[in-house]
Amino acid sequence: MSGESKLFRDPIHGFIEVESDILPLLNTKEFQRLRRLTQLGVTSLVYPGAEHSRFGHSLGTMHLFRRIAKRWREKGMDLTEEEEKAGIVTALLHDIGHGPFSHVVEKFLTAKKKHEKWTVEIVSDSTEINKCLRTISQNLPEQVAKIMKHDPEFKVVSSLLSSQLDVDRMDYLLRDAYYTGTSYGKYDLDRLIEKIARNKDRVFIARGGLHAAEQFIFSRYYAYWQVYFHQTTRGFEKLLQKIWQRAYELFTEGHLSDIDIVSSLRPFFGESEISLEQYLQVDNSDFYQQIKHWANHSDPILSDLAQRFLKRQPFKAFIFPKDFSLDYLNRVQQVIENHGYDPRYYILEDTTSDVAYDYYTREEDDEQKPEILIEDEQDGRIKEISKVSDPIKAIASHRRAVMRIYVPDKICHDELKKLN
Amino acid sequence: MSGESKLFRDPIHGFIEVESDILPLLNTKEFQRLRRLTQLGVTSLVYPGAEHSRFGHSLGTMHLFRRIAKRWREKGMDLTEEEEKAGIVTALLHDIGHGPFSHVVEKFLTAKKKHEKWTVEIVSDSTEINKCLRTISQNLPEQVAKIMKHDPEFKVVSSLLSSQLDVDRMDYLLRDAYYTGTSYGKYDLDRLIEKIARNKDRVFIARGGLHAAEQFIFSRYYAYWQVYFHQTTRGFEKLLQKIWQRAYELFTEGHLSDIDIVSSLRPFFGESEISLEQYLQVDNSDFYQQIKHWANHSDPILSDLAQRFLKRQPFKAFIFPKDFSLDYLNRVQQVIENHGYDPRYYILEDTTSDVAYDYYTREEDDEQKPEILIEDEQDGRIKEISKVSDPIKAIASHRRAVMRIYVPDKICHDELKKLN
Amino acid sequence: MSGESKLFRDPIHGFIEVESDILPLLNTKEFQRLRRLTQLGVTSLVYPGAEHSRFGHSLGTMHLFRRIAKRWREKGMDLTEEEEKAGIVTALLHDIGHGPFSHVVEKFLTAKKKHEKWTVEIVSDSTEINKCLRTISQNLPEQVAKIMKHDPEFKVVSSLLSSQLDVDRMDYLLRDAYYTGTSYGKYDLDRLIEKIARNKDRVFIARGGLHAAEQFIFSRYYAYWQVYFHQTTRGFEKLLQKIWQRAYELFTEGHLSDIDIVSSLRPFFGESEISLEQYLQVDNSDFYQQIKHWANHSDPILSDLAQRFLKRQPFKAFIFPKDFSLDYLNRVQQVIENHGYDPRYYILEDTTSDVAYDYYTREEDDEQKPEILIEDEQDGRIKEISKVSDPIKAIASHRRAVMRIYVPDKICHDELKKLN
Amino acid sequence: MSGESKLFRDPIHGFIEVESDILPLLNTKEFQRLRRLTQLGVTSLVYPGAEHSRFGHSLGTMHLFRRIAKRWREKGMDLTEEEEKAGIVTALLHDIGHGPFSHVVEKFLTAKKKHEKWTVEIVSDSTEINKCLRTISQNLPEQVAKIMKHDPEFKVVSSLLSSQLDVDRMDYLLRDAYYTGTSYGKYDLDRLIEKIARNKDRVFIARGGLHAAEQFIFSRYYAYWQVYFHQTTRGFEKLLQKIWQRAYELFTEGHLSDIDIVSSLRPFFGESEISLEQYLQVDNSDFYQQIKHWANHSDPILSDLAQRFLKRQPFKAFIFPKDFSLDYLNRVQQVIENHGYDPRYYILEDTTSDVAYDYYTREEDDEQKPEILIEDEQDGRIKEISKVSDPIKAIASHRRAVMRIYVPDKICHDELKKLN
Repeated sequence: MSGESKLFRDPIHGFIEVESDILPLLNTKEFQRLRRLTQLGVTSLVYPGAEHSRFGHSLGTMHLFRRIAKRWREKGMDLTEEEEKAGIVTALLHDIGHGPFSHVVEKFLTAKKKHEKWTVEIVSDSTEINKCLRTISQNLPEQVAKIMKHDPEFKVVSSLLSSQLDVDRMDYLLRDAYYTGTSYGKYDLDRLIEKIARNKDRVFIARGGLHAAEQFIFSRYYAYWQVYFHQTTRGFEKLLQKIWQRAYELFTEGHLSDIDIVSSLRPFFGESEISLEQYLQVDNSDFYQQIKHWANHSDPILSDLAQRFLKRQPFKAFIFPKDFSLDYLNRVQQVIENHGYDPRYYILEDTTSDVAYDYYTREEDDEQKPEILIEDEQDGRIKEISKVSDPIKAIASHRRAVMRIYVPDKICHDELKKLN
Repeated sequence: MSGESKLFRDPIHGFIEVESDILPLLNTKEFQRLRRLTQLGVTSLVYPGAEHSRFGHSLGTMHLFRRIAKRWREKGMDLTEEEEKAGIVTALLHDIGHGPFSHVVEKFLTAKKKHEKWTVEIVSDSTEINKCLRTISQNLPEQVAKIMKHDPEFKVVSSLLSSQLDVDRMDYLLRDAYYTGTSYGKYDLDRLIEKIARNKDRVFIARGGLHAAEQFIFSRYYAYWQVYFHQTTRGFEKLLQKIWQRAYELFTEGHLSDIDIVSSLRPFFGESEISLEQYLQVDNSDFYQQIKHWANHSDPILSDLAQRFLKRQPFKAFIFPKDFSLDYLNRVQQVIENHGYDPRYYILEDTTSDVAYDYYTREEDDEQKPEILIEDEQDGRIKEISKVSDPIKAIASHRRAVMRIYVPDKICHDELKKLN
Repeated sequence: MSGESKLFRDPIHGFIEVESDILPLLNTKEFQRLRRLTQLGVTSLVYPGAEHSRFGHSLGTMHLFRRIAKRWREKGMDLTEEEEKAGIVTALLHDIGHGPFSHVVEKFLTAKKKHEKWTVEIVSDSTEINKCLRTISQNLPEQVAKIMKHDPEFKVVSSLLSSQLDVDRMDYLLRDAYYTGTSYGKYDLDRLIEKIARNKDRVFIARGGLHAAEQFIFSRYYAYWQVYFHQTTRGFEKLLQKIWQRAYELFTEGHLSDIDIVSSLRPFFGESEISLEQYLQVDNSDFYQQIKHWANHSDPILSDLAQRFLKRQPFKAFIFPKDFSLDYLNRVQQVIENHGYDPRYYILEDTTSDVAYDYYTREEDDEQKPEILIEDEQDGRIKEISKVSDPIKAIASHRRAVMRIYVPDKICHDELKKLN
Repeated sequence: MSGESKLFRDPIHGFIEVESDILPLLNTKEFQRLRRLTQLGVTSLVYPGAEHSRFGHSLGTMHLFRRIAKRWREKGMDLTEEEEKAGIVTALLHDIGHGPFSHVVEKFLTAKKKHEKWTVEIVSDSTEINKCLRTISQNLPEQVAKIMKHDPEFKVVSSLLSSQLDVDRMDYLLRDAYYTGTSYGKYDLDRLIEKIARNKDRVFIARGGLHAAEQFIFSRYYAYWQVYFHQTTRGFEKLLQKIWQRAYELFTEGHLSDIDIVSSLRPFFGESEISLEQYLQVDNSDFYQQIKHWANHSDPILSDLAQRFLKRQPFKAFIFPKDFSLDYLNRVQQVIENHGYDPRYYILEDTTSDVAYDYYTREEDDEQKPEILIEDEQDGRIKEISKVSDPIKAIASHRRAVMRIYVPDKICHDELKKLN
């Protein structure tokens, strides 16, 4: 059987083997669509190398899940065959529900559903993927859905796939570091895999793994500040949101007609619910078509914002003084307005609540991911990691409260500086 | 001045510095368009990591040109200030005339002009780039055009930018190796740069550089066979060509209407010449929009071919016996036809003349690029490199004449095997 | 002049250029001796790859000093020519006073002088190095000595060469990471160099360099725990100390005669002060000769300890309970004695005071190295880094108080575990 | 069992696992001695990073053997358990019989036996290694000896361990490239391992492996010219030989007394055969002790040559004209003599027969290693590789006939240039 498996060359992990029974999953239209969804959205405007798609990351996540499962087998901590297969497949499919620029314009383009919900639909509905899953094993679609929903039946598998230290993060930190060309995201993968252990239902880091775990968490901390929350990146994300906001406003007011909307995107402007098929039609190419189209629209705001995006002309970031009054806010708006800009579109807000990120204990989204457990070097007991590691404690409780806006040009920026 | 320069983080070369006077060139719509043109076309269907665009390669090429110019200054082999500036800018812009999937569908999408010709137009016509160039120096557009056309006035600069061993290749071999994750394209960049020298108008490799040069040429040889001419990659390229060929046929016969063609691509189906503005509208996103659209077209051939591309369902390669008769060819077509396929679209030909590639002495296209000169270790004379190196001589005169077709499925493939 | 410089190939930094005037310094017997002094002593018993000598590190340190000086020149923060030359030379020579296994057996083999003092003597006395320095510039020996002694005349140069963030550490962290094969010591060198700045006499990290500096400090923190203070490494260091302690005791008691001491090491057993010439005779080869010789000595303790070292038979580490009484200590000794071992030689102590290491604020030795200054991102003022960075604050004030001993075998170890 | 295995961190291969039954072999004095034998002798005088010992290479060779064996098991090409164990152990021990600077001064320090013969003695005689082998399996010493002697009983294992493409070379090319910091020795290890196959007794490269094999052979070709046969390296090797030649002459003439010879080396100057125990006493430290001692000897030739070695003062290379007469040779000697040098010691000859190296088909020593077999992509038959690959054919039949000598200084060198 191994003879018919296929090896993919991956720049991060070397050869990635895909077993013959799983191979058909990859050659579905739903999975191939991942090639047209970039992993890091607008980040490539700041780190030009970061143009990779979700396709490679999905392979890499599966590969790491399999590496751990394999090592556990050698060490007598086996997953059941069913758990292993379901885990491998879920790792492969965990991002299948994403849309283009997910985290940025999801309000518009994922039709208000979280990508995890779309994933569950994709594996469950009548898709090519669902068909492939059924062929591998009759219950596989339900099992994948259960894992996606953190059903306790697959607790160990879920911990590996979705926790503070999961194969998803393990892959993307290395991958994003590789493509951005930063060394920030690097950590000692081999040692970490060696030290991930389980005790019945609990997944934890065994003795001797503390520094590898610290390094992993810190690599995430650096990646957040240097890559994911890079000031210029955030500015372009906010700009994108304004473009869509403006388009919706124009649409609502009847100033955006069908001809101004790329056909695949029209359903997203309507009232009816988006069907799965409609959702899966959309990828980065629709998105860019749309922005290029709007760059020539007659509305001066829409076209100006779209052109700024296409020509990579960032707004200027301006950091608010720590204590500011309502009056101050009004004067800020006044400055922008004085220069002929509509403040609703030409002040990009990046409020604290967006930036607030708790590198370790809390996710950007609401749900709390399971924390990292570690075997204490001295007493051998399993503890939450910030109880054992001072540096992690330091960043776990840490918040950077920066209130930042972006304004359209240097003149505005310099006038704001003079306010007080 | 250096204080206002900007550093780009590049995964291949580390920090790439862009001086303040050149920076505006980057933020033009024509240059930003390079972000939406992939460097390696369909290659990512075989090497999933290779999703990088021409943007990073353009920066890298400029960087290497500047490294050499800088080293030459330290060694007293200075370029004039004018040569250096014109060379840096041309390195940056050398790929600006490309279209999506250039080498594959250029017959259709570059409107029968070579990308170098479009480049000359872009720097010369009233574009944002032309305006930026004039601001840097009044004669710069003309100088760049001269270099692109190999005008003897800029002989040394041209040699560095376009020869068998130029900064273009030096960058893309390393870059493509990095993104594909193969080690094939690697060579000793530092040593090569150290050994590139000039003697008045002649650029050559100085003593002690032979092995670095050999390694460079061999890295290209491996890259060709393992990456650029990978059998599966070639198959998908041929498939793409068939899709466009089918679309044109349908159009000619009146079966493809305006609504079936993405608006930006309509001019490419018409009779009139493509304007520069029309040409620059098109990038990968238009291309994918089009293919996705055709996947739902009523013509069964067009939609089938497009779906095969989107779902990554490769044709099967079949290598012809060395001597085959006309009769044999007919029987091949018969087999395909017997299985209900139209042989005009379901036999993808990859003829010798396509594959024929002379890794060193000859380019894929007509023009012959200047050969590599090297200082003989023993007598100190400057010679053409294959006169000095046996391994290079071995591959310089070497041709692999493989006659290969691709057929739509395994059944056809196996039947062909039984022919004789 | 640059034409006669020499390029060394270095695995960490690529080509390292040594200017022609400095080259003769390298080809002195004092500098070549660095090839026979390993950088990490017994570490290769734990990380087999770490067999590198102080020679490469000296080149690398010089290279980093020159990179910073060069970048400062480009940015208008120039060092004077005199400062630059003296700095480059001091960087090259900063470890010249080391002896074999310096940090481990310095009590015995550096004759109670710190290696920095020997360095000052080597540049000042009538050595080949002194002669070379005078040829470069008449005052150079005195200038190097001043820098070594932190004379305020060379404050900026001293800060670059010897502070919490100096070119010495910058090189060895990367180098030791490379040779051990760990990723722990890696940090973003390019960015750090880009951000090191000066303001008159103060060296600091400019805006945008915080994370690179944090990463640098953390890489040191990991390197300490994973490499430099690795439990097994520490055990072998303690074993070495016991070997020398035993030899001195035997010598004092008249049981070690001249024939038992390698000729170059005899002066170290005598009463008279060690001359510079005698000191420079000794390198790793004398050291190994001696240990191999003692492995066959008639004293059972000396020969046993030496053989354990040569065969790599580590003692077993045993961690003391947090609160232990004097009585407890006596019982520990009793256990060892009961098994026929002399507790003076078969209990290797690794007391808290040895391990206590303050990764950032304090050096292992007494002298405090200048702290790291950083430009605050928000108010632009220069501050001590732990005032700005929570994670650094967390480890700066942090102490791991582990009281550890090593005992000769598993039986002893297991009996100790049963004590309470 | 796997729980008690030990992981070594290796900079080339990551973690190397050593099973618990094999572990004791490593902690013998004979194996630990490999830490004190450098892999590349004087090469570090040219590539300062290349200070690694034979210890890491031995682990790496074992690791690669095990990787192949493991992959074969997954693919159903299993070795027997006995073959696998014997192969792993032989891979680990294959260099155990080396002495210091083996290839350079073997005439003196290996007592005229090849290192392979010493290896057979070490596994067969009453050594710690022999004892460990017997504990693992009663017949293991004999099996290792058989493999070392290419006994047909272990044909497949022998092919993997000692052929033109064996795990020994596979490891040292990567390792030497890593430590020298050159990229010359790199090739695509993962692909090569994937493609090594067996068909009963024949080991060959399967379809799709041609370029990886070519790249492997070329990496060896580059390594030879850039590293192993580097002109300066060769000069120092010849210098070392002259030092030992001079010492033997002085000894024969009664001018070198016992006190001038390091005690462990005395047997090598006597008449009687060297015992295994005497042989195993010697490592790099004895060698350096000896050279340092001779640097102070009263014989001006011996001390001068030794000092040149210690201070890294290379002779100047001089390439002979292609056709030279006997008379020419005499005049060369005359030049050297005129400058007060004894031509017997101050002309270092590096004759063609030394340099002659056939990168692929022939080894430096007499024995011919089995050639590389490859599956033809087109007809599927197994062929010798140069029949299939033009570039390999080009270098397989290729000889560089350079006649080179080294002379003591630039003045001599320049005078020789004027001869004709």
